[in-house]
Amino acid sequence: MAKEKKLVESITSMEEDFAQWYTDVVRKAELTDYTSVKGCMVIKPAGYAIWENIQRELDRRFKETGVENVYLPMFIPESLLQKEKDHVEGFAPEVAWVTHGGLEPLQERMCVRPTSETLFCDFYAGDIHSYRDLPKVYNQWCSVVRWEKTTRPFLRSREFLWQEGHTAHATAEEAQERTEQMLNVYADFAEEFLAIPVVRGRKTDKEKFAGAEATYTIEALMHDGKALQSGTSHNFGDGFAKAFGIQFADKDNTLKYVHQTSWGMTTRMIGAIIMVHGDNSGLVLPPLVAPTQVMVIPIRQQQEGVLAKAEEIREQLVKSGIRTRLDDSDKSPGWKFSEQEMRGIPVRIELGPKDIEAGHAVVVRRDNGEKETVALDALADRIQELLKQIQHDMLERARAHRDAHTYEATDLETFKKTADEKPGFIKAMWCGCQECEDALKEEAGVTSRCMPFAQEKIADTCIYCGKPADKLVYWGKAY
Amino acid sequence: MAKEKKLVESITSMEEDFAQWYTDVVRKAELTDYTSVKGCMVIKPAGYAIWENIQRELDRRFKETGVENVYLPMFIPESLLQKEKDHVEGFAPEVAWVTHGGLEPLQERMCVRPTSETLFCDFYAGDIHSYRDLPKVYNQWCSVVRWEKTTRPFLRSREFLWQEGHTAHATAEEAQERTEQMLNVYADFAEEFLAIPVVRGRKTDKEKFAGAEATYTIEALMHDGKALQSGTSHNFGDGFAKAFGIQFADKDNTLKYVHQTSWGMTTRMIGAIIMVHGDNSGLVLPPLVAPTQVMVIPIRQQQEGVLAKAEEIREQLVKSGIRTRLDDSDKSPGWKFSEQEMRGIPVRIELGPKDIEAGHAVVVRRDNGEKETVALDALADRIQELLKQIQHDMLERARAHRDAHTYEATDLETFKKTADEKPGFIKAMWCGCQECEDALKEEAGVTSRCMPFAQEKIADTCIYCGKPADKLVYWGKAY
Repeated sequence: MAKEKKLVESITSMEEDFAQWYTDVVRKAELTDYTSVKGCMVIKPAGYAIWENIQRELDRRFKETGVENVYLPMFIPESLLQKEKDHVEGFAPEVAWVTHGGLEPLQERMCVRPTSETLFCDFYAGDIHSYRDLPKVYNQWCSVVRWEKTTRPFLRSREFLWQEGHTAHATAEEAQERTEQMLNVYADFAEEFLAIPVVRGRKTDKEKFAGAEATYTIEALMHDGKALQSGTSHNFGDGFAKAFGIQFADKDNTLKYVHQTSWGMTTRMIGAIIMVHGDNSGLVLPPLVAPTQVMVIPIRQQQEGVLAKAEEIREQLVKSGIRTRLDDSDKSPGWKFSEQEMRGIPVRIELGPKDIEAGHAVVVRRDNGEKETVALDALADRIQELLKQIQHDMLERARAHRDAHTYEATDLETFKKTADEKPGFIKAMWCGCQECEDALKEEAGVTSRCMPFAQEKIADTCIYCGKPADKLVYWGKAY
Repeated sequence: MAKEKKLVESITSMEEDFAQWYTDVVRKAELTDYTSVKGCMVIKPAGYAIWENIQRELDRRFKETGVENVYLPMFIPESLLQKEKDHVEGFAPEVAWVTHGGLEPLQERMCVRPTSETLFCDFYAGDIHSYRDLPKVYNQWCSVVRWEKTTRPFLRSREFLWQEGHTAHATAEEAQERTEQMLNVYADFAEEFLAIPVVRGRKTDKEKFAGAEATYTIEALMHDGKALQSGTSHNFGDGFAKAFGIQFADKDNTLKYVHQTSWGMTTRMIGAIIMVHGDNSGLVLPPLVAPTQVMVIPIRQQQEGVLAKAEEIREQLVKSGIRTRLDDSDKSPGWKFSEQEMRGIPVRIELGPKDIEAGHAVVVRRDNGEKETVALDALADRIQELLKQIQHDMLERARAHRDAHTYEATDLETFKKTADEKPGFIKAMWCGCQECEDALKEEAGVTSRCMPFAQEKIADTCIYCGKPADKLVYWGKAY
């Protein structure tokens, strides 16, 4: 079969060309497709089902902390976008503008939301009057548009899906608490659900969000040693509140400005899953996020009783709460194996006439290729165990890879050499001034990823200027 | 309390002014809010939670029939929108146009999707090659934009949320089957989940969707006797396939065009819930779709033990799977009652010191105001029963109302008099020609709602022209 040959040969090896490998996996695992709309993608069923699982779990975690979902318009009138000075400077150059509604020109043009701080502020200004109206802890699931010049599926596209939380609080302390709380929700979600270890920390002023007082981030390391900003949480203080006039009568009957936060996670996380866990056979999905956890593949399925037994096993596993499918198509078993591998389905069950006779099945892990023979009546229990084990092992493997690619530098020469030769995070001290940050980007090609919450003092002086420094920073090349 | 007085008095009675009553309920039940974006609404937590329940249930029903979710871009290049002649004529006058991306004008302007047939066709043209690629049964949850001149929350707004299913099939029969299947999914969902009885039928050619061969619809009757189109399912035949070149190699090795369908349901259904079930105290939610099913309201909550017992009851009900909240705010019980009623929460539990002493609570139904005293240890079971009963009674009540407002006419004079004096559906025979349909709109102010699947022959001749007629049509004034 010509098609069979093509699938096996269709992936560039990641060592040869990581970017091409990524593109190949996205296409061959049927996660996305190109469209006639330049820079925008179709998210196909296999990709969207991953996003649905991310949404469901993240939404559940949000709601446990008191988040309520809402929906605001996708358009922002130009005058509204311009109300907060830093914010408009950050976003105006990359928005899409709507100028006509129906056959008539609009009186005021509107952009398609690149993010919705201004809309939430406008809404809150009318909706918040008293301390009784606080806190507001709202979130929306939607798509946003940023007119990027170069795009890549999931990582950077002109339209992407995300959630954006926007909160308003009576005090600065409460806003700060919520900012950190949501960052931790993201970090725990990334580690527990996606098996992606992250560094939690704060962005430098240079890298923070347009209009924020402080931005917190989780940073993950991809297989190629590049960093990916994976979720951010911003504390706005009362800057937006002052620009939009969001005031409330406090218990003491004085008018005060609210303190606000926002936080977001996007379909980019699907890119992270691919680049942290994938291998040269394709996608590798952590069991918790995998739309299909087990694929049952019959061998010699035309032989009597094989398909019936395979279907019985599928039903039994589904009853045990394991997301299981049976591939009973007329393709060859070898082709089915490579499809299951390409799509990253965590466990494969191979079942042929001889297995049935012996009362067992062959079980193969996608993450490490390990095979074992399992008695049919022990299958459900064993698979449950295996899925937990795989989830655990994938996180540990990713953590080991991350740690092995995290370097320290205490002098500039080592820093530059490391940045040049060893893809990964570089930990180094920084004095806090943007000149040094700019210089490191210029001379070593890295940006500051974050100032981790877990601070260490690995030297006394700034890696660049040599002045006293008390901030440990993670540096790296980033997507 | 000035505020208390305001809530009670804040709703116009529905008999006095139904449109104003609707607007008042939407605002006072805190379902939506106005925005600075003309014609677009904010869907607030109480409104969005209803939509989430609709989504979850509808999505579950879709997936049971094999539907897979995807996501396509929100933009449609102008040349793509123009590929199917009838379709572009139907939608071009009411789309929003994006003309600039970032600081530069676009080479080709794009509209924000008013519906995505053209995008799905473009995608399918590249994705479908062989009979093995069929059927495609895809759906997406998203928002769409139609530049309406006059808008009303949920019923007609420039942006609204919906799902749109788009399928492609190898044969005309299969497409027709899917078209009807999805209409029945909508109808069953409306009746079983929203307690809204519907008439299932086919649209006349005049009323069908732009580009469709046939449009099927479910029509519901609102409390004021106006009809609301509540869900539609379209069979496109191979018209779009020919315009977009969507061909596949069939088993006999010949190239064939696919047959397509699309089907959608929107946030408009929240408007239907309000207008079918609401009353002069506000919203009345069917238990299955109600975000909160039971509100526990303590009486004399400052007295020792009351709040603790109320919380115990809340926890017990939540454990039994009943969505329950406790209103322990410092408002008066009377205020809390009217809030619970305004928000349409199906059951209220009143619990004071005397009730606790007697070991019971007072349980009040929102739909009919009936009160009963229930022993505390029987509460969970009784509430479960009550919720089922309320769901059942609401459907029957709505059905009785609909039936009482469905009239028959076999002569034109009666038809016009009925249309003039009795808001509701009018059943009358029609010859099938558009001139009669136009004339009835002109002279009686009604449109054809549908040709019901359950056809009857109530006369031999067309209600307008008197020529032989074999089609029974439901006529009415519509939202």
